[in-house]
Parts: sequence; C-alpha cells; structure tokens
Amino acid sequence: MMSQRPRRILILGGGFGGVYTALTLEKLLKKEIRRGEVELGLVSRENYMVFQPMLPEVISGSIGILDTIAPIRRLCPNTNLYTRTIESIDLGHRSVTATAGFGSRQHHLHYDHLVLALGNVTSFAGQPGLAEYALPFKYLGDALALRNRLIHTLEEADIEQDPEVRRALLTFVVAGGGFSGVEAVAELNDFVRAAARSFRHVDAREIRVVLLHAGGLILPELPKSLAEFAQGLLMKRGVEIKLDTLLVGATADSAVLQGGERIPTRTLVSTVPSGPNPLVAMLPLKMERGRVVVDATLAVPEHPGVWAVGDCAYIRDARSGEACPPTAQHATREAQCVARNIVAALRGEPATPFSFKALGKMGALGRRSAVAEIFGFKVSGFLAWWLWRTIYLMKLPGLDRKLRVATDWTLDLVLPPDIVQLKTERALGVRREYFEPGQVIFREGDRGDWLYVVTEGEVEVVRSSEDGEETSLRRLGRGECFGEIALVSDRPRSATVRAVSASNVLAVDRDAFQALFATLPPLRSFFESLIATRTR
Amino acid sequence: MMSQRPRRILILGGGFGGVYTALTLEKLLKKEIRRGEVELGLVSRENYMVFQPMLPEVISGSIGILDTIAPIRRLCPNTNLYTRTIESIDLGHRSVTATAGFGSRQHHLHYDHLVLALGNVTSFAGQPGLAEYALPFKYLGDALALRNRLIHTLEEADIEQDPEVRRALLTFVVAGGGFSGVEAVAELNDFVRAAARSFRHVDAREIRVVLLHAGGLILPELPKSLAEFAQGLLMKRGVEIKLDTLLVGATADSAVLQGGERIPTRTLVSTVPSGPNPLVAMLPLKMERGRVVVDATLAVPEHPGVWAVGDCAYIRDARSGEACPPTAQHATREAQCVARNIVAALRGEPATPFSFKALGKMGALGRRSAVAEIFGFKVSGFLAWWLWRTIYLMKLPGLDRKLRVATDWTLDLVLPPDIVQLKTERALGVRREYFEPGQVIFREGDRGDWLYVVTEGEVEVVRSSEDGEETSLRRLGRGECFGEIALVSDRPRSATVRAVSASNVLAVDRDAFQALFATLPPLRSFFESLIATRTR
Repeated sequence: MMSQRPRRILILGGGFGGVYTALTLEKLLKKEIRRGEVELGLVSRENYMVFQPMLPEVISGSIGILDTIAPIRRLCPNTNLYTRTIESIDLGHRSVTATAGFGSRQHHLHYDHLVLALGNVTSFAGQPGLAEYALPFKYLGDALALRNRLIHTLEEADIEQDPEVRRALLTFVVAGGGFSGVEAVAELNDFVRAAARSFRHVDAREIRVVLLHAGGLILPELPKSLAEFAQGLLMKRGVEIKLDTLLVGATADSAVLQGGERIPTRTLVSTVPSGPNPLVAMLPLKMERGRVVVDATLAVPEHPGVWAVGDCAYIRDARSGEACPPTAQHATREAQCVARNIVAALRGEPATPFSFKALGKMGALGRRSAVAEIFGFKVSGFLAWWLWRTIYLMKLPGLDRKLRVATDWTLDLVLPPDIVQLKTERALGVRREYFEPGQVIFREGDRGDWLYVVTEGEVEVVRSSEDGEETSLRRLGRGECFGEIALVSDRPRSATVRAVSASNVLAVDRDAFQALFATLPPLRSFFESLIATRTR
Repeated sequence: MMSQRPRRILILGGGFGGVYTALTLEKLLKKEIRRGEVELGLVSRENYMVFQPMLPEVISGSIGILDTIAPIRRLCPNTNLYTRTIESIDLGHRSVTATAGFGSRQHHLHYDHLVLALGNVTSFAGQPGLAEYALPFKYLGDALALRNRLIHTLEEADIEQDPEVRRALLTFVVAGGGFSGVEAVAELNDFVRAAARSFRHVDAREIRVVLLHAGGLILPELPKSLAEFAQGLLMKRGVEIKLDTLLVGATADSAVLQGGERIPTRTLVSTVPSGPNPLVAMLPLKMERGRVVVDATLAVPEHPGVWAVGDCAYIRDARSGEACPPTAQHATREAQCVARNIVAALRGEPATPFSFKALGKMGALGRRSAVAEIFGFKVSGFLAWWLWRTIYLMKLPGLDRKLRVATDWTLDLVLPPDIVQLKTERALGVRREYFEPGQVIFREGDRGDWLYVVTEGEVEVVRSSEDGEETSLRRLGRGECFGEIALVSDRPRSATVRAVSASNVLAVDRDAFQALFATLPPLRSFFESLIATRTR
C-alpha cells in the first residue's frame, strides 16, 4: 500500500490542533510508523502544550506552574518534535524552514502532507502604548509575568507613601469581557485580595479591580441569564465592571479609555481578540478574516496535501454550514478529522467532511463558582464550578498531570496563596517606551540610569526656577537624545523632560550604553561633544 | 525602659542570617513591637528566602518550583519588608539607601541598630569566558535556568546530525567538588539520564556528565570514608570525576582546563566559592578575607549598633577560637545570638558571646542516596538519604511548605520527571561574548542576525576560494565591527571571522540594531558608509 520512501507528515503548531492531530495520527498509523513507512514531525515554539482553560489558575498559584502544560514529547512519543520557531513555509517546494537553535544552523523540513495549526497571535496594532505596557494573557509566560506583576505592585504599595502613586499601584485593570478576560479578572481579584493580607501597610479596601468590556453585558458567548449571574457575582466580589467601554491606549501608569478618561494603574491586562499569525497571512492561499479557507474535509483547495485546523483555519461546519468558532473543543475535533482524512488520502480512500456541535461552554469565576451551559442546560454557582473542575481534569492530557492537578487543588483548599515573586527575566538593555502629549518622562531631581532617544514625536526639556516658574530649555525630535548626563555622572536629573506630542522613545540602560557606545568611536565622539555642549 | 521615639532595627539581607534575626527579634520583642516602641525592617532583593539545601532538587523538578523558597512576609509578619536592592550604606549618618522600584524614587532608611547579613556573591573574575558562558548555581533563578538549559540541549541533540555538535550538546560539566557541586551534579546526572528516555534520537550512552574538582578527593568537608563512598557512587551512576583539575576558562562550546585541555560542552555549571559582596567590601570596617570582623558578641568593633552575621561576617567561635564556617546551620545560630544581643543592648543588659558546634554535615547524592556525619556518626546510602529528607523537611520554614514538599516527594516516587522547558527570559538585545585565539566566531554561509563590535583583542575576516584556499580580507581591533551586512540583507554570512587573540566582543541583535542605530544620525551615516565600503 505504501511506497518505499517514508511518507512525511509535518504538523506546524503545538496547540490543541497540532498536538491532537499528531496524537490521532500516531494511533491510526501505529504499524506504518513502526515499519518506517510514515514519518511524523511537529514543529512548535515550545516543547509543551498549554492547557489554556487552567491558565488563569497560575495567577493565584492554586495549580503548580508546570501543571497547566503537558510536554509534547510525552503525549506524542512517536513524533519527531522540532522545538523551533518557523521562519518560512514554501508550498511550491513542499518545505518548511525553522530557525537555528544553538549555533547557526537552520532546519529545512520536507513534507508530503502539511497540517497548518498555527493558531493566532497577540496583536496590539493601532493602540498606542499597549505593546509597551499592557500584559497579554495567552502563554504560560504571560500568566507568570502577570503573577509577578501583581506581587510586585503589592510589594511597592506596602512601602509607598504618596497617595496617588499608591492608587495606581493598587488598581488592576483587565480589558475584555469574554471568557478569558472574565476568568483572568476573577482569579486576579481573588488573588490580590487574599495576598494583600500578608502586606502590613496595604488595606484590602484600597484595592480596585476593574473589568473593561466593549458590549452591554459580559460573556456574550453565553445565554443572558448566565452572563447576568456571572456579572452579579463578580461585582459582589469587588470587581468594578465598566460596560460599553473601549480601551484605546496605555501609558506606564494609566489605561486610556475611548472618550479620554484615564484609569491610573500599573497593571493593565489585555485579553482582546488577537490577530492572524503573520506566517499564515503571508501564504498565497485564499483567506477569510486572516484565516486559511479549507473545504469540508479540511483540505486547502488547489494545494493537495495541505490541510488546516484550529484558530488559523476558516472552517464551515458540513452539517450546519456555520463557521466553526475558535475554541479548544473544536480544534480537538478538527484535528481528529484531519488525521483521519490524511490516513484516507494515504490509503486512497475517500475523505470525511467535518461536523461537530459544541457540547457546552464553561467559564470559571474563581472561589468555587462558575457558569456553564452543557447540552443546553444552564448551570451556575458551585455545581458549575464542580463540573468545570471535573470535566477539565478529565480532559487534561496525561495521567501524571491529572494526579498533580488533583493534588494541587486539594492542597489549595487548606493552604494560603503563595506570594513569592519569581523574577527570572533579566532586564533588557534597550526598551521601547510610549508617552502621551504632556506626559512627564522624568522629573528634575529624579534618579535615572537611562538614556533616551526619540524615535517619533517631540519632547521638551524644562527647568524650574526657585519660585516654581518653568523655562523651556530646548525641544527635541526624531533621532535626538536626552538624559545622557546621568550615564556619565551619578547626579540626579538636572531638568524635567515632557512629551509635546505623542512620542515613542528608546530607553538605553547604563550597562548597554557603556558597553556599546563607549567602544564605537563615532558614537563616543558624538556623545562627548553633546555632553560638552549641554553642560556648558 | 524604652524611649518615646521607636527604636529602629534594620536588617540587610534575606538569607538564613537576615530572616532568622528578624524571626527571633519578632519573638523577643513581641510586646515592644505591638506598642510601637520598636520597628523592625528588613531589606532583601527578593521577597522570599531560598532554602539552599533543596535547590538542586529544582533541577529535576522533584520539588515544585516555589516550594524551595519561603515568602519572607509570611515568616516575619511583624517586620517591614523592603523588596529592594541596596545601593549604599552610610555608617556615619546611620542610613541605608535602597534603589527605586516603579518610577524613580529611592528609599532612605534610618536605623539605631543595623544587622549586616548580606552573604557573598557569585564572582567569575579572572576566568575568561565564565561570566559569559558558565551557569552559576546560587539563586532560584539559577536552578531554573540550568533546568531549562538541560532540556534545551536535549531538544537540540534530538534533531542534530553533526556528531561533533551532538557530543558538545550531550556533555554536561560541573566545576567544584564541594557540597553544592556534588549535589548539583548528582541531580543533573539523574535528571538528564531519565529525561533522555523521552527523546527519540538520544541514546543515554551518548550522555557524558563530568565533575571537575581541584583536589584529590571530592567533598573535602567530610571524613575520607564518606567522601570515598560518595565518589564511588557517583562514578557508578555514570558521573566522570576529574580530580586535581582546575577550570580556567570557557567558550560558547567548551570548558577550558588548566594545561589547555578542552571539554566540548554546551552546559558548564560553576559552583566554585564566590567573592565578597561589593557593598560589604566598600564599608570602612576591618576585614578578613573580604568579611567584616566582629567581636565575640557579633558586634562590629568601634561602631556601636552595627552587627554582622552569616557569610559576610568573620566570626571566631567564643569557645573553640576557630573561624565559623559559612553554613546555614551557623548563620541560623548567629542570627539568634545577634537578636538576643540587640535586645540586651536595648535593655542595657550584657551581651552573650557566640559559640556553636555544628551538629553534622549532609550531602544528597540523588536517587535515594546520601552521605551524612551527624554527632560524629558516619552514615551513607539510603539511611543517610532518609535522614537528609526528614531533617530538612523539619527545618523547612512554614507548615504549608512542609506539606507541599512532602506531597511533591510522594508524587515523585511514582511520576516520571517533568521535561517542560520554561522559557521566561526574553532575548537580550545586546550580549557579551568571549572567544579564544583561533576560535571561529561565524562561518561563511552561516545564517546570522547579529552585528559584532570588538571590545578587546583582534579578529580576522577570511574568505575561502573554491579550491578551499583561504584569503585574509582584513584584521579588526577594538571599536571595529563586523557582521553588519546581515543586518541590512537576508543573505548568509559572506565570510568567516576568527579570533586572532583572546577577544571580547559585543553582539547586537537585529531588533536592537534597527531600533537604536537607525534612529541615531551619527550611527546611521557611519554604518551606511561602512557597508558601502565593504560591499564594494
């Protein structure tokens, strides 16, 4: 049945779509793989699959950090895993290029069948300041970063005297009232309120948790009565819900709403829908809203051997004719269908069209409450929460994870939340920042180790006289820099710098500056003469 | 007894010395703290204390990541915790300056009593390449970074064809045969050998784990028979032990030994003794081997109100007259003694001199084996391991941690090791690299996104003709750069670059380059003309 050369099936993406395709293929082609007639490959940026529904629980630490994710190698032991970033897809030559790992060797992977399961990506395009200051919530790293931010702001609030700064530190804003926003705000709210008890100088009544939602009622995916239950419960637990509200931008210490209102905050989480994966968007295929259009059998028309599933595919249900929603439930079933159809293609059998009716929808609301619609029944409160836990525990791949999560959940019933701040990131030498018109970048007298370069916009350098009057020293535009004196002396800032128009700047820290600039002769002489002029 | 203004006791450092000082003071001064007569403060870079003896277990994941650390706030609920880096200590004005957190405000803390418990720091001075390529093993972040490196090298080896590159990927070198080096190599060895089973194309027999030790027998702190037992056991489990061997340097893909031998490796862990904390070294106090000399009561002579404990203090035992070793056992007892002496000073009572005889020493050897010397008895094998676990579990501060660790250990008996690679660091835009004479920095035909600037040494650019003959194009020295063409085009490297002498270079990635260099006019014109000249 099979030819001499092994048939190569390559899956791109390590989410539900990709991993379940590999899992199903391993089962269906067990013999062929063992005989070397078929080779399975999967390319994923991470060596694990994130179990998205449990990600919010990482915030409160009620699940062990590693327990919401499952190693792909263990799930698919007979698939070659390439833990690499994909660089390009060449449909003409039937090959995929993955970036280099250690050293500088690229990987070129050839295929007979290709499954696109690349999902979508977080995109903050068109919202100034969000890329710099908003926290996304999609990957495990995001959940950890958010958890650390929450603890960090509590740490700072505990020793901060200035009431305005305290207010921003103790305000937490989540944008997006869909499932992921609601689950994130529920866990965040529970966690900061419980953790605050360990901080001597933080009063739980100072804490403000805000959920921004563009529509008139949160959880538009659910029936009205369940959404209303969820909304009421969150409000009772102290979440302030702002309906019909759109987030349009962010600064380092505020969320900017449509209409101009600002909420002072140091923690802004954005869970708003993400954009198409640029790798997919670049393919010369028929697209619909950034997704690859496939036929009823999940094959890409006019490209035999190319298939697409999950959030990166535009799929119409064969029975209902409706577009399939981008959920894990659907991705899993699409993966099983595509695997069967690939096997059918290898064996010269006919393909099956895809059809699936969602079993239900569930959203956790924190502290033993949830909402669920299962087989048409509406459930809310403790029973829904119990269902939520039980169903997801069953769905969690791998027995070891099931055991670990069940144990975590049991311990969590009796133990206080963990407030350890896990700093693993090292500071970047160079970072991008964004400032609104009128916003102060730094103040006279501040300490500062950063040099700034204007990349867009205009800023103004001002100095105050003793009677409080301000003199404008100079205005700086694109390509000009300020704050350089702090890099050669230990003195505080000698002037205040403020954005005149909306400005993007690059901040370079002392280490990066000294390492880089001091060794490059053209830069060294440039800065020496600049400092000489400005300090004269 | 006490005066009107609260007496301020400030503790610097969040290790065993600092935390146990605060713990003991909270107990002894319960009433005074409640009445506002005494204020306790503790400054620590992290908001948790690392329970060092369990750190190696983080490598294998047999303990949950957060379970080897305890939140200081929970341990010392009546102490004001400042989670900040200390910038300077001013003994004359009795004040300490801590760095800014969010925003740019420094904290100035005043004290009546000051306890120095700052420990020591990792220092790679004098060993070229170690700062760039060796992995330290002291903080929780180090253990996580090592764990990720192990998984990353296995991931790469699994898809690597070149036998030389594979060899370096599958060789793991630990330098230092003291307690921490031995415990680290034991866990590392167990973990990589167990994890390798999940990698389809890695054969456990390809794995090489090497321990470098400067002396003739590992574990010099223990009696000879125990050290020999440990050495034999590690060797039986596949660890190659190189005695009388000194690590003198490192490159990206090798460990350099005294005498010139190189071990090709992508994972070099260095646990060799660390240097004095620079903050302590700068104090105008009497020092002995980088530590602050204290009297028998742990007070710093001629500076009333200043005390020192732990690894940053040079303490002679009041009874034996011997210098106290830098161990957790001693730090804990020193902390309790200094707390009692501070209370005595506040109450005008006499101070007690410090004396303590170590109860014993223990070292874990992985997989249910250990060596221990307790009250003079020598124990090895399973019984020592059982003692090790039991004693450390008892010592672990906080009931919740005890429960979590006991659970982890139980699960670990039945579950396979976790092989999830947890990437939390983002790539730095600028990094330092070191190359030995003759070492290739990149090869013609390689892909590369980095621009290099020579900060020290000399490099040579060569191109090969079709018959394999090499032509030297140019030599570059300090302040000159190479590899810039890759930043403006997508083509592979057009030449090979090799270090002529020992060279330090800065590598700048494409993002940092484009962001920074493209906006600064002097740099832009410099690079435009450079590229024009070199591509002519």
